[in-house]
Amino acid sequence: MSLTDAQRAEIAAHAKETSATRRPTVPALEAMLYEPQEVLDHGFLRVIDYMGDDAAVVQAARVSYGRGTRKVSEDAGLIRYLMRHRHSSPFEMCEIKFHVKLPIFIARQWIRHRMASVNEYSARYSILDSEFYLPAPEHMAAQSEVNRQGRGDVLGSEAAADVLDILRNDAMRTYSNYEKMLDTDEGYGLARELARINLTLNTYTQWYWKIDLHNLMHFLALRLDPHAQYEIRAYAEVMLKVLHAWLPQTATAFEEYRRGAVTFSASMMKVVRRMLAGETVEREGTGLSKREWDEMMATLKG
Amino acid sequence: MSLTDAQRAEIAAHAKETSATRRPTVPALEAMLYEPQEVLDHGFLRVIDYMGDDAAVVQAARVSYGRGTRKVSEDAGLIRYLMRHRHSSPFEMCEIKFHVKLPIFIARQWIRHRMASVNEYSARYSILDSEFYLPAPEHMAAQSEVNRQGRGDVLGSEAAADVLDILRNDAMRTYSNYEKMLDTDEGYGLARELARINLTLNTYTQWYWKIDLHNLMHFLALRLDPHAQYEIRAYAEVMLKVLHAWLPQTATAFEEYRRGAVTFSASMMKVVRRMLAGETVEREGTGLSKREWDEMMATLKG
Amino acid sequence: MSLTDAQRAEIAAHAKETSATRRPTVPALEAMLYEPQEVLDHGFLRVIDYMGDDAAVVQAARVSYGRGTRKVSEDAGLIRYLMRHRHSSPFEMCEIKFHVKLPIFIARQWIRHRMASVNEYSARYSILDSEFYLPAPEHMAAQSEVNRQGRGDVLGSEAAADVLDILRNDAMRTYSNYEKMLDTDEGYGLARELARINLTLNTYTQWYWKIDLHNLMHFLALRLDPHAQYEIRAYAEVMLKVLHAWLPQTATAFEEYRRGAVTFSASMMKVVRRMLAGETVEREGTGLSKREWDEMMATLKG
Amino acid sequence: MSLTDAQRAEIAAHAKETSATRRPTVPALEAMLYEPQEVLDHGFLRVIDYMGDDAAVVQAARVSYGRGTRKVSEDAGLIRYLMRHRHSSPFEMCEIKFHVKLPIFIARQWIRHRMASVNEYSARYSILDSEFYLPAPEHMAAQSEVNRQGRGDVLGSEAAADVLDILRNDAMRTYSNYEKMLDTDEGYGLARELARINLTLNTYTQWYWKIDLHNLMHFLALRLDPHAQYEIRAYAEVMLKVLHAWLPQTATAFEEYRRGAVTFSASMMKVVRRMLAGETVEREGTGLSKREWDEMMATLKG
Repeated sequence: MSLTDAQRAEIAAHAKETSATRRPTVPALEAMLYEPQEVLDHGFLRVIDYMGDDAAVVQAARVSYGRGTRKVSEDAGLIRYLMRHRHSSPFEMCEIKFHVKLPIFIARQWIRHRMASVNEYSARYSILDSEFYLPAPEHMAAQSEVNRQGRGDVLGSEAAADVLDILRNDAMRTYSNYEKMLDTDEGYGLARELARINLTLNTYTQWYWKIDLHNLMHFLALRLDPHAQYEIRAYAEVMLKVLHAWLPQTATAFEEYRRGAVTFSASMMKVVRRMLAGETVEREGTGLSKREWDEMMATLKG
Repeated sequence: MSLTDAQRAEIAAHAKETSATRRPTVPALEAMLYEPQEVLDHGFLRVIDYMGDDAAVVQAARVSYGRGTRKVSEDAGLIRYLMRHRHSSPFEMCEIKFHVKLPIFIARQWIRHRMASVNEYSARYSILDSEFYLPAPEHMAAQSEVNRQGRGDVLGSEAAADVLDILRNDAMRTYSNYEKMLDTDEGYGLARELARINLTLNTYTQWYWKIDLHNLMHFLALRLDPHAQYEIRAYAEVMLKVLHAWLPQTATAFEEYRRGAVTFSASMMKVVRRMLAGETVEREGTGLSKREWDEMMATLKG
Repeated sequence: MSLTDAQRAEIAAHAKETSATRRPTVPALEAMLYEPQEVLDHGFLRVIDYMGDDAAVVQAARVSYGRGTRKVSEDAGLIRYLMRHRHSSPFEMCEIKFHVKLPIFIARQWIRHRMASVNEYSARYSILDSEFYLPAPEHMAAQSEVNRQGRGDVLGSEAAADVLDILRNDAMRTYSNYEKMLDTDEGYGLARELARINLTLNTYTQWYWKIDLHNLMHFLALRLDPHAQYEIRAYAEVMLKVLHAWLPQTATAFEEYRRGAVTFSASMMKVVRRMLAGETVEREGTGLSKREWDEMMATLKG
Repeated sequence: MSLTDAQRAEIAAHAKETSATRRPTVPALEAMLYEPQEVLDHGFLRVIDYMGDDAAVVQAARVSYGRGTRKVSEDAGLIRYLMRHRHSSPFEMCEIKFHVKLPIFIARQWIRHRMASVNEYSARYSILDSEFYLPAPEHMAAQSEVNRQGRGDVLGSEAAADVLDILRNDAMRTYSNYEKMLDTDEGYGLARELARINLTLNTYTQWYWKIDLHNLMHFLALRLDPHAQYEIRAYAEVMLKVLHAWLPQTATAFEEYRRGAVTFSASMMKVVRRMLAGETVEREGTGLSKREWDEMMATLKG
């Protein structure tokens, strides 16, 4: 972890300060507030603020504010209904703000989600810390032979150690040259906005990231997927835990109707119907590609 | 005002319930929470929830969380700096949610602001109340002769009374026919989604509307403008009061650098510079249209 | 239809004018350009401009520009792959602009799609025409008893005639009063922005609406759904024809992977798997609500 | 420049192919189409497609399609009016698509503009070229002492040469290690998505970037500013030339009302008015900070 002493003191102070509010409040999330949760080797994710709870989703869907006037079972049912029918606007009524420390190559994937607000640490204005992501041996994998953008087998321990050496040495050398270029006494006093171009993509940065619940679930659906790069999945998994603490009914419905859901194309549905009618179906003539067919059969087996 | 008894009871209940939170909390806004503030003849605006305070803007700008480590005067200075240089992302870090009751013709202007989340009362699903906006005599004005989309002189009291009669009668008759078309016993049992097409544009609807601070200020800059239609300005003015209660430093900077600011074009700046040098400038040769010239001279006089 | 003579002349002029361009061009869509396609009783939809073709989607996906370097079959396969895996960004690379005439109550549903650009006819600035939507007898239906926001049986011919009379009379009376309020000679000269509040929601308006292909397909997926209100579906169906003319490969993939696709929740998938294994499954213990179960069984039967 | 031979052949082929279209067409932009315009040492910007012209802005503003029915002078006047009053929606009606090759540290600034569509070269899927940005000596500047995020004096030629050596050597070494980690024969066969984390931020990437005219002008207003980092300004300046070729009237209005415009705060306006009345104004009591005062005085002198 890599919080400064000042940050640690700040967190401790926050832990004691409470205010009275009439806003919807979620004790399970309050308990997590401000606490850094470790991700990767130097990264973290902290919840900084939030707005709304499960009832706020329901309330917006009803555009009335009868909180408490209906039984919880009915609220859960409504949330399931909204999730199943992809009604997105009630889920936009909740909001969460994170403080995230993450490597730059992950920040570049992350920022592709445009429906969020970001304030990132500025390397034009300030100097980046000497922290870079180095994969653990179990994540050091060869290029996949079947998936052009995935990982295959884990490297042997010797190869992994060699790669680790390369990554560490290059990161340390480029960082040390970054410092030298910046140094006004013994170096060159180069402008920060220029010196930073020498840093490697595994250098850590940090940002505040604020997003509404609908878009958070869209982010999670994409980034929890097994095809997402491991390093961003690691952050998504921590966020999923936050989601369960914050909005237990919404999180459960998300697992059921989004994360665990399967979509079949029109042609696939024809196959499923024939199979349910007892027919033994061959791929030929179904209009499905070999890849689609294989994926479908794997899904149907579970 | 037009809250139901159930809603009034709900508001009273909320007024007593408080929770402990470690989130940024603004007492002046807590005091307003849930309370309907009257707008126009039957409309209202209520703050339902909020996230962040002036310090949250500063914190995001610093991407650090040194709340309390700097003096208030410095925070105010930073907020002024951000506003002056149109740095928008730190202002996106605060969020507010309103419950608004408003006439449909205003809802149609309002919704043009896309960077917000909305859940509106559905007239496909439910039945609209018999409430419609009728302008007060002092707002019943003739078409402006100089501004193709504005109001000119107020109507004489007789004419105003006639217009009011027309508006009231037409709204009542169309509403009464709406009820008749809906009625399953003595009427036609028509689908709600069809029957509502008979209602007039001054019928009230309501929605939950959630927006971040940056976009709220953009909304206010446009809708507080004297050229905005009076009826939407009435809502914007209530929101401006909310802004001052919520974020006093940001609101002050907004008045100084956005609402009270004036922009001069390149050609106008040349004129200003010549005038400051003591020259008596004529419009000819300045490249300014008569309209621009007149507006500029009026602005320079204040 | 309700184009003015000036508009008809304009369309005729456009039909003859052509320019040479090096941009991707789609002859089947060029043939449709500017032509109003009738929708409902007075509405229309015209394609005004477009950018891109099927190859532009492929090109963006490859971030290379090897148009023509691959066989069509491969392009179609890539488009199917993108659609199946919900890769949205290549579909954002095409754009289309429509001119639409539509009733205000439909405009209010339509505008909820925020990821588009709109310029609407301004009733603050100009005077609306005396045109209002009156449903044909076969669309004049009773409130559904099973679906709170849908239509049930068609009204009997007498009831339909009565309802039509009500709608027509109210629209004509409110319009006639609108004119009277506006009239500067024999009426009251009321400001346009006020007078229009007397109009009913079935009054026609018009706008230019520009959207990218990804968001257009999202709009279509929602608005072609049988649960969408008939009147907006009527526009969506015309747009679907435009989509097929413009981007035949994308349109085919859209039908297969979006419009004809079915999504099963995690619990539903368990049921499907048990059924495929030959088991006779009862709802009890599956975790599915009665409604979900019924919908699922209907889907599996096709 | 760094187009492959295949790309050069493709460009030559496009140069000869033309189609007939009835869409608005701009000959001056057609002439630029597909041609790479050099930016920095290895970057480029190419216009790939566009939609609309100056008349399309006017047409949307009028929500009529009387192209040709009004004189050009009136069209230019309307465009100036729209720009001056910040009416943004008619400018959203035009769209442009670029192919850009740019260093990663610039891509990270650029992507902060969310209202655009992007397809970037994927380093998870493919291998990046050995191309990195190395500043020319005249852009190799020291950290500014007055502006925490800017550049000051240019480095001496010896220091510049040293810095260049550092940047070049580090980029080459990290790239060579990237290749080694990827190599399946003599290297480690590491997954591409991991190996790329060793590359430096000055490595070139490329993308397709599509944006509407309103958001393009917002991008340009921010990125043409003297405070923008030189390397992104270099791209903005090429885009400004494209804007002038594409939409001469809009571009002229942009220079007059956006780029050349100056905004004065409420307090500044009071000072200007007092100065115009002949008073000699001192900063004290004006409410302006020293920095605001100095900036204002510099602006007033021109």
